Amino acid sequence: MPTSADMKAVMTRYAALVSAGDAEAVVALYADNATIEDPVGAPIQSGREAIVKFYQGACASGVKIKVLSGPYGSFGNSAAMTAEVLVDVPGQGPTRIELIEVMEFDAQGKISAMRAYWAQEDMKPA
Amino acid sequence: MPTSADMKAVMTRYAALVSAGDAEAVVALYADNATIEDPVGAPIQSGREAIVKFYQGACASGVKIKVLSGPYGSFGNSAAMTAEVLVDVPGQGPTRIELIEVMEFDAQGKISAMRAYWAQEDMKPA
Repeated sequence: MPTSADMKAVMTRYAALVSAGDAEAVVALYADNATIEDPVGAPIQSGREAIVKFYQGACASGVKIKVLSGPYGSFGNSAAMTAEVLVDVPGQGPTRIELIEVMEFDAQGKISAMRAYWAQEDMKPA
Repeated sequence: MPTSADMKAVMTRYAALVSAGDAEAVVALYADNATIEDPVGAPIQSGREAIVKFYQGACASGVKIKVLSGPYGSFGNSAAMTAEVLVDVPGQGPTRIELIEVMEFDAQGKISAMRAYWAQEDMKPA
């Protein structure tokens, strides 16, 4: 299993790669059968095709992610961080979402699940 | 189901009640069949008796919890926050753990699951 340090390194790299708009490199951090629940409570994106589409869309929109605190590890296969997401929301303009991302990892150190905790009121004009 | 605002209010109150050492009031925030995984990857504490024991121990040790950021909501029944835990660890002295707590809630707005993300290296001398 990946160590806490391994998981933290992937999460920090994830934020940098999303911000660089490199959808292909972001998707490469994920396991083939991974799931994304962003925000938690929304329909779950599952599998490679859905994940590719999710990050192609995010990167095309110019989304930026900055780690605000953490990542924090665990004694299992997951880690979590606080982050700021900056994104231009159609019809709403530049928007800042402060949120928590929790990620689970498989034995190869790939992300097997990502969950982002934010609600409507956590979105603010940037 | 509880709103994001409801869940955030419970989490803020949780931190205040733990810091005040009021184990009984903390336990009252939990559903009878709730689970605690603190840290994530450690054995899960399950049910009222285990939860009472967990918080009686925590409150007896004088643990303090301060919300550092959030709580952040979701579009489902869970929310998350970053917090600082100050605790006197036997044989180690005053210790600061920066961590993320994720909580799930039942239809009555009681905490049904708590997970705390922190690893050995997230514990620092206070």
